[in-house]
Amino acid sequence: MAEYISLAHGNGGRFMRELIESVIAPALGDVLLESGHDATQLQNIATDQQLMITSDGFTVKPLEFPGGDIGSLAVHGCINDLAVCGATPLYLSLNLFIEEGFDVETLQRILHSLRDAALDAQVRIACGDTKVVPRGEGSGVYIATTGIGSKPANLQLGFELIEDGDAILVSGPVGDHGIAVMLAREQFGLRGDVRSDAASVLPYTRALHDLSGLRFMRDPTRGGLATVLNEILHARGYGMLVHAEKIPVRDPVRMVCEMLGYDPMYLACEGRVVAVVAADQAETALARWQALSGAQQPSVIGHINKSLQHVVLQTELGGQRMLEELEDDPLPRIC
Amino acid sequence: MAEYISLAHGNGGRFMRELIESVIAPALGDVLLESGHDATQLQNIATDQQLMITSDGFTVKPLEFPGGDIGSLAVHGCINDLAVCGATPLYLSLNLFIEEGFDVETLQRILHSLRDAALDAQVRIACGDTKVVPRGEGSGVYIATTGIGSKPANLQLGFELIEDGDAILVSGPVGDHGIAVMLAREQFGLRGDVRSDAASVLPYTRALHDLSGLRFMRDPTRGGLATVLNEILHARGYGMLVHAEKIPVRDPVRMVCEMLGYDPMYLACEGRVVAVVAADQAETALARWQALSGAQQPSVIGHINKSLQHVVLQTELGGQRMLEELEDDPLPRIC
Repeated sequence: MAEYISLAHGNGGRFMRELIESVIAPALGDVLLESGHDATQLQNIATDQQLMITSDGFTVKPLEFPGGDIGSLAVHGCINDLAVCGATPLYLSLNLFIEEGFDVETLQRILHSLRDAALDAQVRIACGDTKVVPRGEGSGVYIATTGIGSKPANLQLGFELIEDGDAILVSGPVGDHGIAVMLAREQFGLRGDVRSDAASVLPYTRALHDLSGLRFMRDPTRGGLATVLNEILHARGYGMLVHAEKIPVRDPVRMVCEMLGYDPMYLACEGRVVAVVAADQAETALARWQALSGAQQPSVIGHINKSLQHVVLQTELGGQRMLEELEDDPLPRIC
Repeated sequence: MAEYISLAHGNGGRFMRELIESVIAPALGDVLLESGHDATQLQNIATDQQLMITSDGFTVKPLEFPGGDIGSLAVHGCINDLAVCGATPLYLSLNLFIEEGFDVETLQRILHSLRDAALDAQVRIACGDTKVVPRGEGSGVYIATTGIGSKPANLQLGFELIEDGDAILVSGPVGDHGIAVMLAREQFGLRGDVRSDAASVLPYTRALHDLSGLRFMRDPTRGGLATVLNEILHARGYGMLVHAEKIPVRDPVRMVCEMLGYDPMYLACEGRVVAVVAADQAETALARWQALSGAQQPSVIGHINKSLQHVVLQTELGGQRMLEELEDDPLPRIC
């Protein structure tokens, strides 16, 4: 196998078979379902379950950053969308768009990381496709993943279930992923020790499944916490009041944000959950998250208030400001 | 909505919502399943069916060509992989990687074409994702689709079922797609009236489902007919003899190939099927294909011969040559 990807590695012939047989398949290992056919059969889906599907594209730059890389992100980003809908991820499809000239060693590192994330989440790669684009018409590698999961038929979640007075929880500090990727770019000459929070949120979503008062969950990725709260506002038509001092933000994240004028409310997470829960079950939900191994400051950050027309943030100084819908992108290419 | 895509259209905020609400969702129309959630439920899958999954990436250049564009191709390429496995396509996921500066009008045209192909094949877009990459780090638009289909549990197809003496059929002329895309590039100063064969092959695959002697089907895309035949050779270990005069190639395709030194056996099709059928059912299979509306020269091109070690082509002059596995890519970026 060559050290660098060439256009011939995408042509469907011998070079492409070599890339798949000597790089991609070995790197993915057991996580890859072997089919030898154009399509693969999905097995062992219980008949009392609802099938769920989601899809995500990944163009993060740089490809590798503290706490993850585009490979692990392509698993976590996709399975987390299933998890917040109450589903257990089962299968992934994997599309690679590799730039001509990309080095095979980095590709292998990314695929190993993807495999480890899939192993950890117990999902299998059911099918995939590899395209090679000419040098200069890509950015190393782009990935798309589509995830299939199963959800208990009796588990109902949705914006429409959200009621006035419901509590809003976040499972951990916000903005780590955005700042970790930004620092990894070194474009501002800053260095820091912030690691991405990229991880499966499945333990967090599963911990709440049997709560009768669980209304809605979402992972705050692009656009961050403020964007999820605005989605609730748009979809349900209810405002909310959240408290800045209740929203966990790590000190180094806060510091970088202050230096560069970013608002951590809008920065991407890749391993957090926002949940809306009936007020009288908020403490139960919080206690369950706190009891998880590796729990990091889960918090009840505020409540739905249908008399409000906006997402209102009570600041630490006692004032209030509106968290508007994200306009311009503070940090492109973070996922 | 702006006329051109900006990075902010990929940021998860207001601009991205505007792109989805005012361009993508209207262009896809009824074909798009509305969920409003991070994952979408797949419904109406009969319990006596096997679920099948496949995935495909598309980087064709130019984006539009006679007979299709990257939008229709993203549907046909994906559903054909399900069809040749005996499945009926039901759902697609849709990943768009759009380059900053791409014009919205072309995007709409591509999405309309994608919608029409999906309508025609009766598949729904169940979920999707849009990423915007910086100007110069893409090529207009790349697409990835993952398809879910259902297959009768009693339908068995596979390399391992292929027997000595089985007939090999192709459903129509080969090489149209490759040459149509190549001519659309105008890189050789050639113009011609070859249209891509890009289409759903579902009518062709369904026509053979109930034949007890149906062993295997595949669509000859990247690497063309010769690549499918070599895959059979590799997977089953049986050689075969195919006859050049039985393999349909349109005159303009043959002419361009002769001028430029291409071999039509290696050129991509996007609407053809190669089927392996028990010899005594070959005429039945052929008659069924001939009876389909729009049928174009389906043909029995040769037979499996386990005493041969190669894919052997009997030429029109009576000689023989081996169709080896594709090495270098004659025409990159055709899908």
